[in-house]
Amino acid sequence: MHKKLFIPGPTEVAPDVLQKMATPMIGHRSKDASALQREISEKMRKVFHTTNPILLSTSSGSGLMEGSIRSLTAKRAVVFSVGAFGNRWFKMAEANNVSADKVESEWGKPTTPEMVDKALATGKYDVFTVTHNETSTGIMNPVEEIAEVRKKYPEVLWLVDSVSSMAGAKIEVDKLGIDVCITSTQKALALPPGMAICSVTPRALEHGKQVKHRGWYLDILEIYKYIETKDYQYSATPSLSHMFALNYQLDRILAEGLENRYARHKAMAEYTRAWAKNNFALYPEEKYASVTLTTITNTRNISVKALNDGLAKVGMQISNGYGDLKEKTFRIAHMGELTMTDVKEVIAAIEKILPTLG
Amino acid sequence: MHKKLFIPGPTEVAPDVLQKMATPMIGHRSKDASALQREISEKMRKVFHTTNPILLSTSSGSGLMEGSIRSLTAKRAVVFSVGAFGNRWFKMAEANNVSADKVESEWGKPTTPEMVDKALATGKYDVFTVTHNETSTGIMNPVEEIAEVRKKYPEVLWLVDSVSSMAGAKIEVDKLGIDVCITSTQKALALPPGMAICSVTPRALEHGKQVKHRGWYLDILEIYKYIETKDYQYSATPSLSHMFALNYQLDRILAEGLENRYARHKAMAEYTRAWAKNNFALYPEEKYASVTLTTITNTRNISVKALNDGLAKVGMQISNGYGDLKEKTFRIAHMGELTMTDVKEVIAAIEKILPTLG
Repeated sequence: MHKKLFIPGPTEVAPDVLQKMATPMIGHRSKDASALQREISEKMRKVFHTTNPILLSTSSGSGLMEGSIRSLTAKRAVVFSVGAFGNRWFKMAEANNVSADKVESEWGKPTTPEMVDKALATGKYDVFTVTHNETSTGIMNPVEEIAEVRKKYPEVLWLVDSVSSMAGAKIEVDKLGIDVCITSTQKALALPPGMAICSVTPRALEHGKQVKHRGWYLDILEIYKYIETKDYQYSATPSLSHMFALNYQLDRILAEGLENRYARHKAMAEYTRAWAKNNFALYPEEKYASVTLTTITNTRNISVKALNDGLAKVGMQISNGYGDLKEKTFRIAHMGELTMTDVKEVIAAIEKILPTLG
Repeated sequence: MHKKLFIPGPTEVAPDVLQKMATPMIGHRSKDASALQREISEKMRKVFHTTNPILLSTSSGSGLMEGSIRSLTAKRAVVFSVGAFGNRWFKMAEANNVSADKVESEWGKPTTPEMVDKALATGKYDVFTVTHNETSTGIMNPVEEIAEVRKKYPEVLWLVDSVSSMAGAKIEVDKLGIDVCITSTQKALALPPGMAICSVTPRALEHGKQVKHRGWYLDILEIYKYIETKDYQYSATPSLSHMFALNYQLDRILAEGLENRYARHKAMAEYTRAWAKNNFALYPEEKYASVTLTTITNTRNISVKALNDGLAKVGMQISNGYGDLKEKTFRIAHMGELTMTDVKEVIAAIEKILPTLG
């Protein structure tokens, strides 16, 4: 039995979108392949609210996180972390011998504009990274406020991990001034995992030329080179299956309407949060609670594993806490294809199981 | 109209295999995901003729080429190149600040055991790389002879690019003593592009511990860690669609029988080569001609582009020459799902078009 996924990726994929994954192959150096990538880029620019080039990477979102911090940091990066995925970004810098510092918030708290101001004021950095939506803690960072304070440091490149929020929350890349905004297919875009996508500013591409050892497969400049000089192609052989499905899914997303999509995510988040507050507690500071997933503190000390086993029997799945937060928290994702009907269904199922857990 | 692909990847994918790409999603940290990767690994070990661990990477074959030379070279690597993909391996070493030398054969000629002996005798290297099958020139290197001479240097790690030959040609990884053998899905395995696969020896994993900056997403040791400690899982979110299809396709490959599969590829290669010699000329030295694709010298100075345009009209596609060899050579791939019937069909179509090219 297929379990309906209320986990922060992979998320549910619509049957007609899944079917596009089964499209027969074409040559990746063909005009058809160029046209496919160009179409995806044009539609994706609408989702990102940007006029910047769009890069595709056959990798998970982590691939472009690593590629961007490595290939664009010429001096020193500062990584603002609010949980596991911020910490991973810092680990990637270290693993690539990229000079970097980490500014970590207490888990459940956001990255504040003050923290960004203080760090950038030192003049030590040419790159800073922010996690827009942190799937371990359920924090959604105040990127609008950060964008305001960042205006004082226009020369510093800003990289944003919006892996688990893009297309579920409004992120106006150009208005905010984000240099590299990263997402991947298996979250709010509601496609299977296997492809990462980012926007990149021309000035970031120019800045990266100063970096001597950028690697190859994940190098932002190398990926862009094939778009520019090979008419929207990819440096290696890309996952064409994902590209067929992505191109189709972008039509569905734009047909729903981005504002409608954001409103749907907001409504699901508000419903889940209200339930969480009535029955347990919110893990993140409420003002910064994510619209794509809710991390709930397990105040009643239930067995999250038993809860999920019970849900499995009725064909649903939520997430246990991430890493050390296992059993201390649990997570209900409400993104991508899911609707209010689904969210009500999973919460009704949880309420039915809770009394049986003792 | 779908064009039947006689190009060296992506290759044709059987309809039932394509359909597996449309399998609904599961959680990538689930027991089902572990079981899926374990099954793939067990079957893949048969294809690789190895008992070594099998790693999956959501990337193209280039991803694991870069990952292996970077994360396993502690001293200095020597890259034996017989064409574009050998040169790419060397470029990757440079882009990652990995100390490396390149020994390049004249295009159309193989890497000889003598070349390997001479380089390794210097004692300068802890890693050497060989391209088993070079899709630019159509060379298949004599890995059995190289394995013989390599016995003099057992401590040097041997990395092999078998991206465009594994499952089409017999490569006995353990018998040959290959430390890392790399392939990807879109060639003789006959799946859509998007996933790379390699085998790795425990001693190579141990050796890599000396390398300080191995990166993260493509780091061989990091990928292995999740197999070992997380029961056959992946460091990031993998392309589950490819895993579903790969698991199914491996059953089909093993049902055909590996020896039958090798014989089928050999027969297709012999037929194509004979035709090429009668009508044009073979580009590679015949003794080292590939069994998965034939690179043909355009001795009649036809327009390869016009030939391919003609083939497109009857629903087929071959490859022009690679890079500088464009129009000077053309390539007919005969691998994966293709059979002798298909090869006869494309050659008959080419013969019909040739007189019209003037």
